[in-house]
Amino acid sequence: MPLSKPMSDEDELGMIHVYTGDGKGKTTASLGLGLRSAGHGYRVLMIQFMKGQINYGELEAVKNLPNFEIVQFGRAEFVDKDNPADVDVKLARDGLEHARKAMRERKYDVLILDEINVAVEWNLISVKEVLDLLETKPDHMEMVLTGRHAPQSFIDLADTVTEMKEVKHPFTKGVLARKGIEH
Amino acid sequence: MPLSKPMSDEDELGMIHVYTGDGKGKTTASLGLGLRSAGHGYRVLMIQFMKGQINYGELEAVKNLPNFEIVQFGRAEFVDKDNPADVDVKLARDGLEHARKAMRERKYDVLILDEINVAVEWNLISVKEVLDLLETKPDHMEMVLTGRHAPQSFIDLADTVTEMKEVKHPFTKGVLARKGIEH
Repeated sequence: MPLSKPMSDEDELGMIHVYTGDGKGKTTASLGLGLRSAGHGYRVLMIQFMKGQINYGELEAVKNLPNFEIVQFGRAEFVDKDNPADVDVKLARDGLEHARKAMRERKYDVLILDEINVAVEWNLISVKEVLDLLETKPDHMEMVLTGRHAPQSFIDLADTVTEMKEVKHPFTKGVLARKGIEH
Repeated sequence: MPLSKPMSDEDELGMIHVYTGDGKGKTTASLGLGLRSAGHGYRVLMIQFMKGQINYGELEAVKNLPNFEIVQFGRAEFVDKDNPADVDVKLARDGLEHARKAMRERKYDVLILDEINVAVEWNLISVKEVLDLLETKPDHMEMVLTGRHAPQSFIDLADTVTEMKEVKHPFTKGVLARKGIEH
């Protein structure tokens, strides 16, 4: 892997990507984008909202990638959508603050806000707070917002929007979440 | 990263996933799935059809991941869809043979056939050859087939099918393929 090589001013302007929809591949596509970027020497940060499980494969794997960092702001427990616990709100807000700090410090070329669409839909953080954050994006920084039900304002602002659409689901095998695939 | 830890017979049966559609995130979602799996200690092989460029970020990045291997079977040049060169056909066939060998040797837990849907659509290899290959899949092995225009028979056979649907494209910025994002 090349040494860390920040994008220069000559590089193209960084874009904002949204991965949404009910299908598989939103988080993994952003992980893959991060992997590619890390391979080019860019510095990548993924902030995972509403996730706090230690057995996510990506957490182990990126320990081997010096310029790809993942931090989680969530608990292992599910968030109660209709009545989120104070700690869930606090964790999401901490994640947002971590993103603001990453913007200010300009230590990263790629910033992935995983499941932030869901954190907004579930009222852990507000649309406006995220839009305000996006306004502070350094020009060169590439950003990815993932999660079902992306708010229309994120879609309007984004440069690319991809809907991961579930065409076929393995209900016949009765499998829910499996190691290496869903986490 | 844990030492290589093959899936045991007790693990769930491996599935066949298809990522198709005109949107972003097919290859990157499979890279992300590979990253996760590698983080869990599974042995991952990605065979890239119709790609032979050395500047793909994922090639650099996986050098840091001891149990994630990527091999390319293609050239840097574009394949002429209507009249593919002999070398393009040969490379795709070599890729298929590499996949057969990987099946036989049982050295991998996850096998990703990147852009194989396109290789089939462009008649570099046949649908039947791929279906025959899938029949030899060890029960525990997880497989991913990516590329636009997945043949219906792949969709019928797959356990999960996700369509990456382009909702918004950055035509306004006039950008085609950028380092770290598209390769």
